[in-house]
Amino acid sequence: QMPRGNLETVHHRALVLAQIRKWLDRLMFREAFQCMRKLRINLNLLYDHNPKVFLENTETFIRQIDSVNYINLFFTELKEEDFTKSMYPSVNGSSNTQPRQHSDQKKVNLICDVLRVAMEHIDPQKYCLSILTAHVKKSPPELEIALQKVHDLRESVTPDIKAVSAEEALKYLLFLVDVNELYEYSLGTYDFDLVIMVAEKSQKDPKEYLPFLNTLQKMETNYQRYTIDRHLKRYTKALGHLSKCGPEHFSEFLNLVKDQNLYGEALKLYPSSTQEYKDISDAYGEYLIQKQLYEQAALVFARAGIFAKALDAFQSSGSWQQALCMASRLGYTQDKLSSLARSMAGKLVEQRRHAEAAILLEQYSQDYEEAVLLLLEGALWEEALRLIHKYGRLDILETNLKPAILEAQKNQLIFLDSQKTAFLRYKSRLQVVRELKEKACESLQDYDMPNCPELELFSETSSIVTASDMNSRYSHSNSRISARSSKNRRKAERKKYSLKEGSPFEDIALLEVLGENVRAVESVKGDIHILLKQLVLFGYDEQAGALQQVLEEVLQLMETSVPEIWTPDLHQSSVDLVLGPNSTANSIMAAYQQKRMMPPVVQDPDILTPPKFSKNLQWKLHLLQ
Amino acid sequence: QMPRGNLETVHHRALVLAQIRKWLDRLMFREAFQCMRKLRINLNLLYDHNPKVFLENTETFIRQIDSVNYINLFFTELKEEDFTKSMYPSVNGSSNTQPRQHSDQKKVNLICDVLRVAMEHIDPQKYCLSILTAHVKKSPPELEIALQKVHDLRESVTPDIKAVSAEEALKYLLFLVDVNELYEYSLGTYDFDLVIMVAEKSQKDPKEYLPFLNTLQKMETNYQRYTIDRHLKRYTKALGHLSKCGPEHFSEFLNLVKDQNLYGEALKLYPSSTQEYKDISDAYGEYLIQKQLYEQAALVFARAGIFAKALDAFQSSGSWQQALCMASRLGYTQDKLSSLARSMAGKLVEQRRHAEAAILLEQYSQDYEEAVLLLLEGALWEEALRLIHKYGRLDILETNLKPAILEAQKNQLIFLDSQKTAFLRYKSRLQVVRELKEKACESLQDYDMPNCPELELFSETSSIVTASDMNSRYSHSNSRISARSSKNRRKAERKKYSLKEGSPFEDIALLEVLGENVRAVESVKGDIHILLKQLVLFGYDEQAGALQQVLEEVLQLMETSVPEIWTPDLHQSSVDLVLGPNSTANSIMAAYQQKRMMPPVVQDPDILTPPKFSKNLQWKLHLLQ
Repeated sequence: QMPRGNLETVHHRALVLAQIRKWLDRLMFREAFQCMRKLRINLNLLYDHNPKVFLENTETFIRQIDSVNYINLFFTELKEEDFTKSMYPSVNGSSNTQPRQHSDQKKVNLICDVLRVAMEHIDPQKYCLSILTAHVKKSPPELEIALQKVHDLRESVTPDIKAVSAEEALKYLLFLVDVNELYEYSLGTYDFDLVIMVAEKSQKDPKEYLPFLNTLQKMETNYQRYTIDRHLKRYTKALGHLSKCGPEHFSEFLNLVKDQNLYGEALKLYPSSTQEYKDISDAYGEYLIQKQLYEQAALVFARAGIFAKALDAFQSSGSWQQALCMASRLGYTQDKLSSLARSMAGKLVEQRRHAEAAILLEQYSQDYEEAVLLLLEGALWEEALRLIHKYGRLDILETNLKPAILEAQKNQLIFLDSQKTAFLRYKSRLQVVRELKEKACESLQDYDMPNCPELELFSETSSIVTASDMNSRYSHSNSRISARSSKNRRKAERKKYSLKEGSPFEDIALLEVLGENVRAVESVKGDIHILLKQLVLFGYDEQAGALQQVLEEVLQLMETSVPEIWTPDLHQSSVDLVLGPNSTANSIMAAYQQKRMMPPVVQDPDILTPPKFSKNLQWKLHLLQ
Repeated sequence: QMPRGNLETVHHRALVLAQIRKWLDRLMFREAFQCMRKLRINLNLLYDHNPKVFLENTETFIRQIDSVNYINLFFTELKEEDFTKSMYPSVNGSSNTQPRQHSDQKKVNLICDVLRVAMEHIDPQKYCLSILTAHVKKSPPELEIALQKVHDLRESVTPDIKAVSAEEALKYLLFLVDVNELYEYSLGTYDFDLVIMVAEKSQKDPKEYLPFLNTLQKMETNYQRYTIDRHLKRYTKALGHLSKCGPEHFSEFLNLVKDQNLYGEALKLYPSSTQEYKDISDAYGEYLIQKQLYEQAALVFARAGIFAKALDAFQSSGSWQQALCMASRLGYTQDKLSSLARSMAGKLVEQRRHAEAAILLEQYSQDYEEAVLLLLEGALWEEALRLIHKYGRLDILETNLKPAILEAQKNQLIFLDSQKTAFLRYKSRLQVVRELKEKACESLQDYDMPNCPELELFSETSSIVTASDMNSRYSHSNSRISARSSKNRRKAERKKYSLKEGSPFEDIALLEVLGENVRAVESVKGDIHILLKQLVLFGYDEQAGALQQVLEEVLQLMETSVPEIWTPDLHQSSVDLVLGPNSTANSIMAAYQQKRMMPPVVQDPDILTPPKFSKNLQWKLHLLQ
C-alpha cells in the first residue's frame, strides 16, 4: 500500500492523512479524492472520516468529483469496515469516537443509496452507469432494478447526447455481474426483449434458450409469470401469479403451497369466505397437526369454518373450552355434548387439571356428583363444598369429603416426615464430605495440582440413601403431591452431579438435593394452610394441630440448618477476607487453592444460593396455637 | 479451683484427670467420685466424660455412691455446660467427639430423670431426699410432685426405720426452695393440710392466710379448685374446674375465657353440640374478627352453626365459595342469593379475580352477559368464548369480544414500547455511570480511602427519566397489565437504591430497574401468546403479526443486552483473575479496590444476577412467521 518508489513522490503518510482530513473537514472533496487516488489511500476514508458530514453533503461530493469513472471507482472500493479504526487510526484518537449514527444500517448500502439519490437528482442521464453501479454494489445487489433501468433506456426515445445507450449500459452491467446471474434476473423482469438482449451478450446457445422463451411467450400472462417465478424459485411471487390463473389451476397452486410450506402466503391471496381459503386452511391445519402444533391447527381450521377438524385438534391440544365452542358450532345434541365433556374431563384429570374437569362434568354432563369427587381428588376443597351446597347434597360431606380431608392430612404428614428424614441424612452426609475434603486438602501441600483428586478420597462407608431411594419410599395418593413428586422425579433424572458416595462432586449433589427438600416443603405450605382450614371446619382440631406442628418443626429445622448448609463463603467472594490487612503471600495462595476446590465446576449458581422461605404466607391457624 | 496449698496434696491436674477417666471407663464411679470431691474437680465430668455410658449405668452409679448426701451434692453441681469442652478439655481430643445422643433434651433434666428412676427402683424410702432433689433441680422445677411426695409421706403409715418423716422432707425442701414459692405450690395441690404444714414453716402470719383458707374450704370442690387455680394464675386449669360448676357459673367462665384469650382451651371443655360451645365460638369469632382474621373467625362461627355471622366473615375474607355454602345453610331465596353473588362479584373484580366473579354472576345471578363482560375485562378470552357459545350468543363476538381483543393488542404494544424505551435509556445511562466510575477510580490513587467518593462525581446532565416517570407515562386499561403494574408500583416504593442522577449507588439502582424491565416483558409472554391465538382465530393476522414481531424484537434486544449489563465480573468472584500467575502486589491491590467499588453495598444478590429468559414457552405462532 506504499506509493511507488520515485523519490520525489515519497510522502509521509501521517502528514498526507492530516492534510486529507483537513480537506474533508472543509468539504474539499475533490482535492482529497485526487490526492487519495494518487497516493493510493483507501477511498473509504472519504466516508469514514466523518460519516455524518459525508451523508449531509452527498450532492456537493458528486458535483466536486464530477466523474462517472471516479464515482464508480469510489463505489468499487467501498467496504463495511471502518478505516479510521483499522488502517488509518487517528493520532489523537478523539476525532471519530462518537458512535455511528446509522449503526443498524449497513455502511455500503447506505452510501450507495444516498449517492444514487444525489446523482438521480443532479443528472440521471449523465450518471447512468454510476447509478447502475450503486444498485449492483448493494448487498444483496438490486439487479432487477438495474436491469429495469437498462430496459427503460431502450424504450426511451429522447436522443440525449449525454445519454448512455441501452447497449452500453448492458455491457457495463455485464462487466460488473456474472452473465448467467444476469440472465436469470432478466427473466425475472418478464421482459422478453431484455432477456434476449442479455442472452445475446452471453455465451449461451440460442438453441437452448429460445425454445424455452418461445414456450413461455405462448402462455397466458399470469401463468407465464408463474412459470418464470417458479423457474427462478421465487415461490411467493409464483403463488401470486398462479392465484390469478383461475380455479382450474388451483390444485397446482395447492400442491406448490404444500411443497414449499407457503400456507401463510397462500392464505393472503384469497378472501376468507372463499372455498380456496378453506382448502388451503385444511391443508395448513393438517400440516400443523403433523408438526404436533394441534392448537394452531385448530385455530386454522376454526376460522375457515372446518369445525369438526377444529374440535378434534382443540381436544388434542387440551383446549377444552374451544372444543366446546366447536361442538356448539356443530350443533351437538345434549347427549353428544355430554359424552364429549366426559371424555375431555378424563384427559384433564390425567393432567391433574381437576378444577376444569369438574366444570365439564357439572355443566356439560350434568353429573355434579362425579364433579365433586374429582374436586376432592384434586384437593380443591372449597370448590367441592360449593357444589355440595349448591346441589343440597350435604350427605356427601360425611361419605366423601371428611374421609378425603383426613386422608390428605395423613398423606401430608407422611410427605413431611419423608422430607425431614431425607433432609437430615443429606445434611449429616454433607458434613462428613466437607470434613473429608478439608482434611484431604490440608494433606495436599503440592500447589501445582490443578484440583484435589477427590475421586479416590471419599469412598468410606457411612450409609446414605440415594435420592431415588428416598423418593420411592413413600407414595402419595393425594393428587397435588403426586403431581409434584413426578415432576421431581423427572428433575432428578437430569441431575448433573451424582449423589453416589465418593463421587467427585458429591457435596454439590447434596446441596442440590437439600435445596430440593427445602423447596418441596416450602411449596406445600399453601396446600397445608387450605387443608388446615378444612380440618378445623369439620372439627378435626387434633389432626389439624398435629399437621401444623409437624410442618412448623420441619420448617424450623430447615431454616436453622440453612446457614450451616449454604455457608456464606460458598457463594460470595471472600476476597475481603483473603486480602485483608493480615494477609501474606502464603495465606493468599492458600485461600486461592481453597477457592478452586469448589466453585469452578458449578454452572448453575442456584445450587449455591440458599433456598428462600416465603414469610408472606400466614399459613398457621390461630385456632391451633 | 486449685486444691489447698499443703505440699503433700498438690497433684498434677492432667494426671488426676487421666486417672479419673480411666476409673470412669471401667465404671468405677465411687473411686472417681471420691477423688473428684477431694480434689474439687467439677462433678459434671462424671456425666460429660461419656454420657452414653453414664446413662446406661445409673443403677451402678447409685449403688456405688450409696450416699444421699453425695448424690444430692452431685445434683446441686449439675450444669447444662459440657465440661469436657470448657473446663477439662481432653488432651488427645478424640474421646468425646461423637455428637450428643440426646441433644434435643436438656442434660440436667435428663440426668435428674434417669437417676430418680434408678433410685425409685433401688429404694425409694432411703433415697427420699435425693428423689426430692431430682424433682426440684429440674427446670422448671417439679415442685408440685415434690410436695405431693411429702404429702404422701404423711399419709403413709409404714413406720420404716430408714424412712424419712414428712417433717424432715419438708424441712429439706424448704432448704432447697423459697418458702413463699413453696406455699403457692402447696396451694396448688388443693391439700389444705399440706398448705397449713408449709405455712407453719414459713414466717407468714396465720391471721393472713387462715381466713383465706377458711373461705376456700367452705366452697364446692370444683369452685374451690377454680378459685385456687385462678389465684395461682393457672387459668387453663381454672377453666377446667369452673366448667364443672354448672351453667350458673358459665358467664363467669366466658368472662375468664375472654380475659385470658383461652378460647381454644375453653372449646375443648364442651361438646360441639352444646349451647356453651356455641357461645364460646361466638366470642372467639368476634375476637378473631377484631384481629382481622376473618376467615378463621368464619370457620369458628360455621362449625358452631352460627351461619349468618360466618357468611359475613367469609365474605370479608374473600372466601366466596364458603360464603355461598353459608347462604345455602341459611336457606337463602333465589333473589337473596343472586344479590349476594352480585355483591361478592364486585369485590372479586376489585381484586382482579375476574374468573371467579364470572362464575358467581353466571351460576348464582343468572347473568351470563355480565359474566362475559367481566371475562373480557380480565383478558380471559377462552372462558368468555365458552360462555358465548354455551348460551348461543354469537352476536357478542362482534359487539364485545373482537373490540376487546383489538384493544388488548394495542395495550400490549404500548406496554412493550414503553418497556423498550425505558430499557434503552437505563442501559445507556448505566454505560455512562460505569465509565464515570472507572475514570474516578483511576484518578484516585490514594488507597487509604475506604470508598470512592462517588456522591460528588456523577452529577453531569445527560437526561434520564426516573422509574416513576416511566410508569406514569402509559396507562393500561387491560386488566392483567394493570394488576402487574400496580404491583410494580408498590415494589418501586420500597426501592433501596436511588435512580437519581449522581446518587451513590445509581448503577445498582439502574441494574435493579433494568432487571424489572426484563422481568416485566418476560412475564407478559404468556398473556401475549394467548392473545395472539385469539387475534388469529378472528382473522386479525396483521395485528397479531405486528405484536409478535414487536415482542420478539424487545426480547432479542434484552437478551443480547444482558451480557453487557450483567457483566460476568459483577457477581462471580474474580479471584482467578486477580491471583493469576501474572499478578503483582499492586495488581492485587488494584483489583481489591475495584471490587470494593460495587459489591459490598448490595444486600440483595438478585440485583446482580441476570434475569432469566424462559425458553420453555413456545409463545410464537407458526402462522405468523
